[in-house]
Amino acid sequence: MQKGSVGIIGVGLIGGSIGLQALRSGRQVFLFEPFARNKVTNARFPGAQIVSTLADLVVASHLIFVATPVSAIPGVARELVNHVAPGHVVSDVASVKRPVAEILAEALLGRCQYVPTHPMAGSEQSGADAARADLFDDAVAFICPEFASEPGAVDLVTLFWEDLGARAVRSTVTEHDQLVAAMSHLPHVVAALLVNQVARSGGSRLAGPGYRDTTRIASGSPALWSEILVANSDLVLEQLTGFKDLLEEFLSLLSAKDVKKLQAFLDEAKRNRDI
Amino acid sequence: MQKGSVGIIGVGLIGGSIGLQALRSGRQVFLFEPFARNKVTNARFPGAQIVSTLADLVVASHLIFVATPVSAIPGVARELVNHVAPGHVVSDVASVKRPVAEILAEALLGRCQYVPTHPMAGSEQSGADAARADLFDDAVAFICPEFASEPGAVDLVTLFWEDLGARAVRSTVTEHDQLVAAMSHLPHVVAALLVNQVARSGGSRLAGPGYRDTTRIASGSPALWSEILVANSDLVLEQLTGFKDLLEEFLSLLSAKDVKKLQAFLDEAKRNRDI
Repeated sequence: MQKGSVGIIGVGLIGGSIGLQALRSGRQVFLFEPFARNKVTNARFPGAQIVSTLADLVVASHLIFVATPVSAIPGVARELVNHVAPGHVVSDVASVKRPVAEILAEALLGRCQYVPTHPMAGSEQSGADAARADLFDDAVAFICPEFASEPGAVDLVTLFWEDLGARAVRSTVTEHDQLVAAMSHLPHVVAALLVNQVARSGGSRLAGPGYRDTTRIASGSPALWSEILVANSDLVLEQLTGFKDLLEEFLSLLSAKDVKKLQAFLDEAKRNRDI
Repeated sequence: MQKGSVGIIGVGLIGGSIGLQALRSGRQVFLFEPFARNKVTNARFPGAQIVSTLADLVVASHLIFVATPVSAIPGVARELVNHVAPGHVVSDVASVKRPVAEILAEALLGRCQYVPTHPMAGSEQSGADAARADLFDDAVAFICPEFASEPGAVDLVTLFWEDLGARAVRSTVTEHDQLVAAMSHLPHVVAALLVNQVARSGGSRLAGPGYRDTTRIASGSPALWSEILVANSDLVLEQLTGFKDLLEEFLSLLSAKDVKKLQAFLDEAKRNRDI
């Protein structure tokens, strides 16, 4: 492995965007895509070295990102075990951290360094074709240091994300999962519910920009998102239940035509949104 | 009154944007702002004639738009009665049509032509300062012809909106209110609920672009929106109840960790959103 080299397992929206921006900043980049149906080409990633086995990727890379869908991570973990060495720093980018980190930590601890991360960036699109070098500009990247025995490994991963343009924020995997259940997973579910309710009421053909913005993320990959939501289901259920309580409160204010209290509710929302 | 002249009562985001774009296309524009606290100036509306009474506006204008908040419409209607003449065409732009149209139709029918409208455009901002000449570019403008005894009045209003850049769509006031309850009022409530739930769970300080887009409209004016929601409360309650049913269905799928059915739900949302 060469210092500063980065290997990416899973070249979708996130993995691909990491690759593009790492190439831009002059790093050696190795790409391995475990799913044959996803084509990764040098036309799309000029200068990257596209390898055909996970073993080839590991031997060449210093910092290794697991960027596959959540459901592929157990398989990747089992294979990583056979190839990693003490000098390696492994990270992952899954949107849910505790369940994923438990799998990877069990496989990797004692063999190499492991530092889970999660960039709060994305798009309603998915796949390598949607990857963009600027995807992480100013995005928050969570760094979870709790599994690393060498502080240098955490620093390496932190600096890497900052190099990509992100703002690194440290948290535990549990704190992370609580925060994203509210800030990311809940909005995703709500957008999907909204789209389906509007569709049942005659569709959105004539809708304005408010509807379009509010529901953009409902175009995200159903396969990826159903896995994420189930992986974080306890915390997402908590959020959805809190949301439902507020919905019931709002329903009763609207049934009573209580303009004053409705306005107070919307005022609170505006204040919270305008922060 | 001069042919083609337009008078606007209430110079906020919508009234002001109508004024700016009508000025651009060379029309004579008269502005009357009933609330002294809202300042309307020629620096903001160059070329417009700012009048100080509703009577002055009516006498000068051929086409008259009522563009005040919903709660001010009964007062405006009472005053309009004293000034309109058979040659006038009155319209309004309220986000809810049946309750508003009932008030204006009762006041105006037999005295002048009345054609309710509603442009599906807006922003989370409000007031004359937020007005933009291009606000209606490609927006749907509902035109409700059912109160006009002269088809020429409906054509005049339709052509006016098309001149402003909008796509005119005819509907009854009742059909309109059903459509916007789903496409506009429901998303507004949902965005507010989402913001308040996220705030109760630690805030959105670290949230990504998904949260920001999904909740943008929650910054809209609480005073205007509480009035709109109460004015259309029966139909909004219907939408919120349908939304709550879907939420409960989703909660039970997630509790059961039924990845397949969750994915089917998200697939349906993606298909509906991508139309």
